[in-house]
Formats: sequence, structure tokens, C-alpha cells
Amino acid sequence: MAKNITSKESNFSQWYLDVIKAAQLADYAPVRGCMVVRPNGYGIWENIQAVFDRAFKETGHVNAYFPLLIPNSFMEREAEHVEGFAPECAVVTHAGGEKLEEPYVIRPTSETVIGHMYSQWVQSWRDLPILINQWCSVVRWEKRPRLFLRTSEFLWQEGHTAHSTREEAFAETFQMLDVYQRIMQEELALPVLYGEKSENERFPGADNTYSCEAMMGDKKALQAGTSHFLGQNFARAFNISFQNKNGEMDFAWTTSWGVSTRLIGALIMTHADNDGLVLPPRIAPVKVVIIPISKDERKIKDELEPLAENIMRQLNSALNGLYAQVDKQYHMRPADRFFYHLQRGVPVRIELGEGEYDARKFTVVRRDTSEKERISVEAIADRVKTLLKDIQDNLYYKARTFRDDNTHDVLSLGELKEFFAKDSSKGGFARAYFSGSSDDERDIKDITGGATIRCMPVDDDTRGPCIYTGHPDARRVIFAKAY
Amino acid sequence: MAKNITSKESNFSQWYLDVIKAAQLADYAPVRGCMVVRPNGYGIWENIQAVFDRAFKETGHVNAYFPLLIPNSFMEREAEHVEGFAPECAVVTHAGGEKLEEPYVIRPTSETVIGHMYSQWVQSWRDLPILINQWCSVVRWEKRPRLFLRTSEFLWQEGHTAHSTREEAFAETFQMLDVYQRIMQEELALPVLYGEKSENERFPGADNTYSCEAMMGDKKALQAGTSHFLGQNFARAFNISFQNKNGEMDFAWTTSWGVSTRLIGALIMTHADNDGLVLPPRIAPVKVVIIPISKDERKIKDELEPLAENIMRQLNSALNGLYAQVDKQYHMRPADRFFYHLQRGVPVRIELGEGEYDARKFTVVRRDTSEKERISVEAIADRVKTLLKDIQDNLYYKARTFRDDNTHDVLSLGELKEFFAKDSSKGGFARAYFSGSSDDERDIKDITGGATIRCMPVDDDTRGPCIYTGHPDARRVIFAKAY
Repeated sequence: MAKNITSKESNFSQWYLDVIKAAQLADYAPVRGCMVVRPNGYGIWENIQAVFDRAFKETGHVNAYFPLLIPNSFMEREAEHVEGFAPECAVVTHAGGEKLEEPYVIRPTSETVIGHMYSQWVQSWRDLPILINQWCSVVRWEKRPRLFLRTSEFLWQEGHTAHSTREEAFAETFQMLDVYQRIMQEELALPVLYGEKSENERFPGADNTYSCEAMMGDKKALQAGTSHFLGQNFARAFNISFQNKNGEMDFAWTTSWGVSTRLIGALIMTHADNDGLVLPPRIAPVKVVIIPISKDERKIKDELEPLAENIMRQLNSALNGLYAQVDKQYHMRPADRFFYHLQRGVPVRIELGEGEYDARKFTVVRRDTSEKERISVEAIADRVKTLLKDIQDNLYYKARTFRDDNTHDVLSLGELKEFFAKDSSKGGFARAYFSGSSDDERDIKDITGGATIRCMPVDDDTRGPCIYTGHPDARRVIFAKAY
Repeated sequence: MAKNITSKESNFSQWYLDVIKAAQLADYAPVRGCMVVRPNGYGIWENIQAVFDRAFKETGHVNAYFPLLIPNSFMEREAEHVEGFAPECAVVTHAGGEKLEEPYVIRPTSETVIGHMYSQWVQSWRDLPILINQWCSVVRWEKRPRLFLRTSEFLWQEGHTAHSTREEAFAETFQMLDVYQRIMQEELALPVLYGEKSENERFPGADNTYSCEAMMGDKKALQAGTSHFLGQNFARAFNISFQNKNGEMDFAWTTSWGVSTRLIGALIMTHADNDGLVLPPRIAPVKVVIIPISKDERKIKDELEPLAENIMRQLNSALNGLYAQVDKQYHMRPADRFFYHLQRGVPVRIELGEGEYDARKFTVVRRDTSEKERISVEAIADRVKTLLKDIQDNLYYKARTFRDDNTHDVLSLGELKEFFAKDSSKGGFARAYFSGSSDDERDIKDITGGATIRCMPVDDDTRGPCIYTGHPDARRVIFAKAY
């Protein structure tokens, strides 16, 4: 076990921060609640961006860029929206050496300013749908910051679409929820439940909010992505109106959806272990590291390093990208070099010592299970490809098993209270029938010491008696404590 | 000539704005001096990002993200830096519903906050060099905004590196200047001169600034990218110190370098014509458009569209990306559909009418010269590839010829005055020997009605008598009026 990392079991919060520090993923910035995403962390974000961006484009979306600053008056046009976001806003009052006539807020999200622009771009049904996404940072002032999970500034994407019919906007909302779920599962190895949010957890200004919910290593839920059906609320507030096919004026139907650098937090709290980061191969910036080892400088330069670089080129060609690296930190002890990459979550390590060189067989170690095997030069590219796939599958399988093992049906309020009690052997996701009000949900939060409805799974249409009201025809929901 | 575009010759400024509007590249935002980069413009920016990002990574750089907000006190630590940037800063005074103890500025550039972080990451020479780049937006309040050229917020990349020796930092400064020059030439078809800036035009806080300078269609210069040698100025201000190989403490040597969405302005003012945008194929988001034309709906669905989509797939495969599109705007007249893509700068248009379908030969039109030819189905992929290369080369050649035709040697102050006079038949780049002071340069600016030293070309070591002081051993510089 790593000396620089507190164990997961003894202190999950400290373990999380230690993993981030050991892998050099991020630091707190000299600005309250903000973070610096260091190259190791940003490399993961670039890969996350790439897989989502490709999926957005495949579903017909294009990228654009809207201004960072939003006139304060825009926020006020949608009553729920300003109530939800105003307390978190950072406000610009001076610029260019002068006091501004009207203050600007730094975007906490861009529905308002994008709504304003759409109103200028849309006249006829032919101008719809608009399917735009934006990659940027947003600012929401945080009182209790936590790297990647809650920071006053974070990186994200926000999709904003406008449609001529309610049905089309609803279909878009679900399509993007589905894209999120699929990418999280296939690329990030994160099993997620997806469903509708209760009124308490709805996006300010939305008619409905849907989310992907993942279970972290401490059995708490993390909201990993959201997709909002905004109805005509923002279209009315910003006058996104158009002439429909019948020549009548109508308001557009809009959606918005987003994922953020929070996903890096989800990756850590799902896959990392007491030695440090563990990355799913599909989004790991470095997938394989090759480590030449010898005390003989001549042998390193003349024999080991050329072979290591040869293997690196073979792997990069087989993996179709610059994913393999040769470690040349010869001033460090071999064990420290192994540990260096292990703590950074590199999925596969190849050790190339003098013995390995002479035998033309390498020691190959996988990060997730620590299993070692010896592979010949000829077989290495194929074997590493298979290993990477195995590791990806294994991480997903382990995470899903963990989640399923910690998901239980709960049939009464008493059981629910017990489920979330501090000394409970359970905890995790409680599946229960519920049809209570927002106040009832808040009461449950008090009773359980913090559990809320994470979502009402959309693919679960079973019904039963509400654990709170006893109403016989309640929907099934997931209760959990959440980040 | 396009009715919605003022001619270049009659009003260059209005022409520029008309081209942007016709191609839907950008709009002014509802925030003073800020812009919205619309999908057509952002697609160009994504391609510009891709070619530069690849070159940065090939030269060993990695990406990271630093906070948007910078404590005001950080700006004040470097005297020249604060003097240069403070008047342009946007200031956050309130956040989270409270007045801040210390105001933050929105980054106008990130040397200060990055310097602060580097001071924490660097202890020994082994921690150097640090080679980091950041893609983000910055805010510099503009009194006279102009889309892409001068906006209060713009998108850019800022590279920030730290080195253990002066020589290495200088080599980095020149390496990045060279990368800029090469990418602008090869990918953006922009011929650029590169050289050192005079003291008047130096980055606030730099020891030396180098730039790439391009000539626009109105013969004015545009600074297209800059690379700064920062000496130890920021390292001293932020205490980026390290133990060198001899065990002594030393300050690091730093550089910074950037290009921005201004490059889109450069593309327009270099390549566009009186019909609208013309894009170099290598950075055009859509490189080929195929336009099926018939009044017979059945023929379109059963014959023309399937063939068009077949050609599209062939082209995408040959071009190795999703670069070809089929136009399905059948509600528009053919001429309007041609014009639609022409104004957006699509390099190659393929017309597929009933005659073309029957003959299995298409009319292929290139955007830059309007030349038409008929190409058979079998030959189309190869021919389009060649055409795209020809267009790219032709755009570069035309731009270089224009620049060279408008670059002249000027041997005296009188000649220089005449060169830049309003009724001059010349104008453009004036190559002259100059060794005067900053005040002398300002005097020349007054005399010529605005011409300044754009750069002192680094590959020009000829010497001659200064046009201002008469000093016999002056360096050669380029004078021009500039954006």
C-alpha cells in the first residue's frame, strides 16, 4: 500500500484527495474554491471531451461559443432561474477602468444569453431545430469546494437546442440522456442509472430534469450528467418565436444538457484503489509504459532503449495513437519508477530488464489486478491490445457488481431509516416506491440524515405502495446520499 | 457580385463585416464588445485548434487549465505587466452574494497565476522544463470592438514554459515562432513575416517579443501570433526558483506565446472576395458540397440523392474525415443553393443535375477561381483531392504575390511619408533601415499618419543608414499601418 495515500477504508475523503495529489491531477488555485487542472488531469479531460464530442457530432450537433459575461437583467427574466443561480454568481462591476452601468455575471450556465441569440436567429420553422453545443468553463461560487466535484469554476459542455415541437424537444432530451449513459458505460467504465429528477432536484427553469447517477466507492451517489426539458419557459422569456408550417407564430421548445470535469471525480471514486489512480484504458492518456532497467548505461543506450522504443512504435501503431511511452527516469530506483506510473493509473506496465532483453520476453503487469505475465516480442502488440480490453471490461464489471451489491429494495420508512443509519451494514442505493410531495421528500432527508431521491429510473415502470404516504400506485425511485 | 456584400474596393471595413454576416461566422453579443462565434466560425476555429495543438504536442507540450480569475495583487507584482493590462481588465467585486475582500480580475493573460503555480511545482532542475499550453478565453475591455480582430473577450491558446537556462528559454521562444510561421503558411495559407518587435510594441513584462505579421487585403498589417522571451521577470515576481545541477538556487527563465480567434479575421481579410468567404481547404470544415438538382421529387429520392451520398462517402473516405456534404435544400432555387455554399467559402462544389446523372459526369466548380470542369464518377475522388491541394496552393501563392507586390524598399523619411500618404499609389509594407529610439518611432507614426514598426525580420541581417537618424549601421525593419 502506498505511503502517500490514506486508505480508502479508513478515510474515504482523505483517500480521494491523496489519490489526486499522488497522480498530480489537480491543485487548489490561489482563488477561493477554484482549481488548477494539471496536465495529467487535463489529459483525461481531453479524452473525455473527444468521446463526447464525437457522439454529439454523430447526432447532428455543432459547436459554437457564447460570451462569458451575461447581463444581470437576462438572469432575471426567468423567475426560477434567477432564484436558483443568483446566490452563486460572480459579478463584474467594473471594466476598462470604469464602473459598468449594468453589472454582468460570469455565466453559471448559458440558457439566458443563448436564448437571446436564438431569438435573433429563428424566424421560421425552417430555422429549426438548432442543435448547438459549447465547451467552456462556468462559475458557481462554492462554499465547500472539493476538487473536481464542487469547484467555484469548472470545465464542462452545455448543449442547447431549440425545436418546433414539444415531441421533438422531448426526443432530444432523451437522446442526449442516452448518449451520456452509453459513453459513461462504454468509454469511462461507469455504470449509471438514468431517470427523472424529483421537483426538489430539478434545474431552475426546467419542466423536467433527467440525470445519470453513478455509485461511488463509499456507496454515495454522484450525479454524472443531466439533460433538461425546458418546455417553452426560456423561449417565452427570450422570445424565441417562429412562424410554423401553418403560418402561425409559436414559441420554440428548448433543451439543455451537460457533463463536466466532475466526471474525473467519478472516475477516481469508482476505479482508484489504495495505491492510487486506476484509469479505464479507453480514456487513459498513457495506456502503456515501457520501463528499461539496467545499471549499465551502455546497455541502456545500445540495447534496452532501442528495443523499448521499437516496442513503443509497434504499440502506437497497433493502438492507432501516441498511447505508449518509454520511461527514462534512470535516476530513480526501478521500484519507484513502477510506483510512479502505478499512482498515475497507467493501465499496463512493461518491464524490460537485462534478463528480459536476453530472453526477448517482457514482464507485463496490468494495473487493475497486478497480474504479471511474460510475453514475447512477437506477441506483445496483440497481447497488450487484448489486455487493455480486458482491463476496460473488468473495471466496468467490478463497478457494476459493487453497485448492484449495494442496491436494495426498501419497503417501509422504518427500513429506509435503518438502511441509511450510521451503523448500518447496508447503505448505498435504496429502491423504494414513493409518491410523496417535495415536503415529504425533505422530511425523508431529515429522517435519514441526508438521503434524497437521486432519480426515478425511466426504464422501471413497476408500481407499489408509497413508503411515506401509503398511496398504492407509487413510482419506483432511488434514494441515496449524494455528492 | 453578391448583393448582400459591399465591394472590397469601395469599403473594405464594410466588406469585412458583410462577409462575416453572409457566412454566419459571428455576431456581436448583447455584452459590450463581445462576440458570439457561430457554428460556421467555430468550425474553422476547431480546425485551427487541431493543427496548432498537434504541432504543440509534437514539440513536447501538454495542455492544462488555470483559473479564469486572478487576484488583483498578482497583477501588481510585475510593474510593467500591471501598467499594460490594468486599464483593460474586467473586475469581479462580488461573488456568492457577498462583497469580496480582494477583487479578482478576469484573466487578460495568465503569466501571473501560472507563475504562482509554477513556483509551487518547481524545486529542482529535474522539475524543468515545464512545457504547458492552455486553450481558453481571455477578457481585455475594448473601446473599438471589431469582430475577430478586437473583441472584449476572445478565444486563444497561451503557452507558458519555464526553463533552467536562458539559452533553452530563447530556443523555445524561437521554436514556437517557427511553429506559428509554419502552420500559418502550410495550413492557413497565410504568408507571414516574422521578427522581433520594437520596444513600443513589446508585451508588458517581456524582455523580447517576436511576432508573425501578415498583410491583409487593404495592405494593412495584422499581428497574427506572438512569442515572448520573458527573461527572469516573472520568475522573480512569483519566485519560480530551483536548485540547479551545482546545488545553487536560481530563478527559472520563462516564455509565453499565443494565437487567437484573430486568425479567423486574418483568413477573411486575406482570402475572401466580393462574393464572400474563401477558405483554404486544409482548415475548411466543409471541403466539398454535392448539390442534387431536379424538379422531379422521385428522381431526387431514387436517383440523384443516392448517387450524391455515394460520392459523399467516397470523398469522405478519400479525404479521411467527414468533409463532404450533400445539400438537400430543395425548397431553394439552384442558383441560391450554389450561392449559399459559395458565401460560406466551401472550396469545391459538385453539381448533380439530371443531365449529369445520365452522363455520369458531374460539374465540379472550384471556389477560388470559379473554374468549372466535368468529371466522371470514377475519377471524382482523385480529382477532388488534387483540386483541394491546388486551391490551397493557389490561395497561398496569391496572398504571397499580393504581399510581395506591396512590399517596397524605402530609403528616406520623405519617401516613407509619401509611401503612406492617403493619395499614395503604394502603401503596404515599407522595408527600411532604422535605429532610432522609441520616441523617434512615435514621431514616424505621427508623420506617416499611423505607420509603426511591425517587426525586425530575424532572417534579415543586412545593415544600412537609418532613415531617421542617419546612423550608418541600422537594422532593417518593416513599417506598416496595422490592425
